[in-house]
Amino acid sequence: MIRHLREAGDLDAADATLILDTARELARLTGGREVKKLPTLRGRTVVNLFYEDSTRTRISFEAAAKRLSADVINFSAKGSSVSKGESLKDTALTLQAMGADAVVVRHGASGAPHRLANWVDGSVVNAGDGTHEHPTQALLDAFTMRERLGRLAGLNVTIVGDVLHSRVARSNVVLLNTLGAKVTLVGPPTLIPVDIASALGSGMTVSYDLDAVLPASDVVMMLRVQTERMNASYFPSAREYSRRYGMDGARMRRLPEHAIVMHPGPMNRGMEISPEVADSPRSTIVEQVANGVSVRMAVLYLLLGGK
Amino acid sequence: MIRHLREAGDLDAADATLILDTARELARLTGGREVKKLPTLRGRTVVNLFYEDSTRTRISFEAAAKRLSADVINFSAKGSSVSKGESLKDTALTLQAMGADAVVVRHGASGAPHRLANWVDGSVVNAGDGTHEHPTQALLDAFTMRERLGRLAGLNVTIVGDVLHSRVARSNVVLLNTLGAKVTLVGPPTLIPVDIASALGSGMTVSYDLDAVLPASDVVMMLRVQTERMNASYFPSAREYSRRYGMDGARMRRLPEHAIVMHPGPMNRGMEISPEVADSPRSTIVEQVANGVSVRMAVLYLLLGGK
Amino acid sequence: MIRHLREAGDLDAADATLILDTARELARLTGGREVKKLPTLRGRTVVNLFYEDSTRTRISFEAAAKRLSADVINFSAKGSSVSKGESLKDTALTLQAMGADAVVVRHGASGAPHRLANWVDGSVVNAGDGTHEHPTQALLDAFTMRERLGRLAGLNVTIVGDVLHSRVARSNVVLLNTLGAKVTLVGPPTLIPVDIASALGSGMTVSYDLDAVLPASDVVMMLRVQTERMNASYFPSAREYSRRYGMDGARMRRLPEHAIVMHPGPMNRGMEISPEVADSPRSTIVEQVANGVSVRMAVLYLLLGGK
Repeated sequence: MIRHLREAGDLDAADATLILDTARELARLTGGREVKKLPTLRGRTVVNLFYEDSTRTRISFEAAAKRLSADVINFSAKGSSVSKGESLKDTALTLQAMGADAVVVRHGASGAPHRLANWVDGSVVNAGDGTHEHPTQALLDAFTMRERLGRLAGLNVTIVGDVLHSRVARSNVVLLNTLGAKVTLVGPPTLIPVDIASALGSGMTVSYDLDAVLPASDVVMMLRVQTERMNASYFPSAREYSRRYGMDGARMRRLPEHAIVMHPGPMNRGMEISPEVADSPRSTIVEQVANGVSVRMAVLYLLLGGK
Repeated sequence: MIRHLREAGDLDAADATLILDTARELARLTGGREVKKLPTLRGRTVVNLFYEDSTRTRISFEAAAKRLSADVINFSAKGSSVSKGESLKDTALTLQAMGADAVVVRHGASGAPHRLANWVDGSVVNAGDGTHEHPTQALLDAFTMRERLGRLAGLNVTIVGDVLHSRVARSNVVLLNTLGAKVTLVGPPTLIPVDIASALGSGMTVSYDLDAVLPASDVVMMLRVQTERMNASYFPSAREYSRRYGMDGARMRRLPEHAIVMHPGPMNRGMEISPEVADSPRSTIVEQVANGVSVRMAVLYLLLGGK
Repeated sequence: MIRHLREAGDLDAADATLILDTARELARLTGGREVKKLPTLRGRTVVNLFYEDSTRTRISFEAAAKRLSADVINFSAKGSSVSKGESLKDTALTLQAMGADAVVVRHGASGAPHRLANWVDGSVVNAGDGTHEHPTQALLDAFTMRERLGRLAGLNVTIVGDVLHSRVARSNVVLLNTLGAKVTLVGPPTLIPVDIASALGSGMTVSYDLDAVLPASDVVMMLRVQTERMNASYFPSAREYSRRYGMDGARMRRLPEHAIVMHPGPMNRGMEISPEVADSPRSTIVEQVANGVSVRMAVLYLLLGGK
């Protein structure tokens, strides 16, 4: 097994499948009311090192670590010595010296988890770095697809939205490619550069017409619109975006009967996804959150304690 | 036993008494130096979902949950995805999906715990919602009265201050009524509307003259003056408020010998309560804090684990 | 053993040595991969009461307490009822009532831990108070010197920088004096008043010439430059400070071969210490962080649970 999870490319098909299988087993073991906690990581320390606020991701990792009986220390870089000018390296040496067995890091700069991994003995797990990657999101998405549709190989997965700035899209493209799914990227031309296919890897199609690809999609993954980007020149107006790339009831009904609609959350209801879709049985949004805990348990278990 | 504690009205006399009796037993079991922790809620997860800062209440619930061996996850809504526009419903679905067994919620909007309870399988405990209710505060107050005075039925409880905006007053009125105590509300007319008695329930008296009601009071509960309200047109000047409704040594000496003075904290010493009173043996302020942990242990125990 | 650690002067040589010996034993017991956690303080509650941000110190105490199986509650005074005007005394009574076995306090006002110790039954540990003291920093520094150099008695320790405002310097001077080391203070005259030797205790030398004292130093401890002080009239320019009092490679090579360079962190690389020195084998900066956890485990163990 690998030692760090810095990006989806750290995983070959065997590793990725092992994580998904382990997540399923852990979900089964801890899903009941009575045995929600396993002693596997007792005495191990997991540090959540968050340079950006992300309560949902932090809580998901915290819940995962605690269900494995690890100790969790939350380190929010706001108001810490980081703001006194401490470098990432010095922070890494500090966490290292304090005995962190795993460091879960969220950082605004792409590549920060890679640099961190050079300086610590413990395992580094990327919880989102800049516009680069968010590999556990891709793992929980793959887990959700496999639970719902029974397989990943050969699935047609359509990813819709601001692919250019999305670490969720980037990790999904890499992981789905590893696991044999076929990805179609859909969005405004300014947000899906023509050369992105070669940049992200092989086996990918690009389309600017959502309606055209719906009938052949097994999975449609809506990306969150970052509202702070909506006034940028490369971004369509909110109304235009929603009209052309939003998933509403009419579009949902053009999907094959078995197809599912995914969203990494938090949603902008009425923007990239309508309430009707968000609350429909095709939507996997709530399952994705639950699966996130299982997948992160599997990652921590395999990196820290597994054989 | 009930599943949620959204407001004091969720409790009938039997439930309320069961909580008070359980709190006493838990205080006895964990009060010693050696066995401060019970394994009752091992493996259960309690989420503190705080949309308003309240370190004291949060810590009290956290200490209560940890003494029962539950895992605690603190979710401060500041700087979370809530500020990215996530709705309470989506947050609820997230906590639900993450397996929260109980959600302790503090929210600025009255009624938020009721809405939350519609969306989660776990138990919802109201830790203060707008100007509506704060039921565990009322339970710890009732516990404190019973410990000090031996009973609740028939007690004359005088609640003094800004009743109109006080969730503490509201919960106390409801619970004390359930448990057979007689409540008198005292304060400036602008803060005690004439129709409040019917709004809050039966068995209540209203007075605008604190000195007149002191000799017949078994309990005087001073409400905290919210200093942010002091410049409002409906609020008397600080000096006038303190002169007419503040509890000082002279007023304390007009109470019956056995009477106690309560305050939910944090106090404005010199405003609604003088230091002489706050530090006197009649004051139960420190006991109230300690009893808060016991009562919250009882609530979590009964909602989550009790028979 | 003492009950509180409010300042370095609370410790006589026997107590200080006991802490250092215990820290070594605890480091040995918990340094391995498998048994990182001891059950010693199970059921005890340690509250981190931080009125100033200091993530590193807070995390170090949190890691120490958790390795001893204590429950940890973090109380950040920002946004708490403190900002509603609650006094330190009322906060202390609250923590006391909630059953805190130890309160680790960081406060902007010198002497706050002494006042706190009057109001709580539990143990008070000073984690930094104003410009006064930071005794666990001095203990971890002494531990580091003893590990590296085999002894403390008779060592020549040179402390360089803004001694006037440094609680680290103050605690080190007191503790090193207790343990028989000889201290030389070096820095700009405005930051080392001539009467400081008598103010801080006996057995101390003052020098304004770093280069002159290097050849006889076993330990050089660089103090952090507080950048917020750099524009004050008593502070030299950054360039002048760095040139006269910064530790760079040239100065490091003038030290005896066995000498070490210490820094409490976080460093201003290029200001008081050059990257070459910070990353050299003489630098103990990373060890100091690791030793901080061991020493704080020893302090909590001896104050709360030890015989």
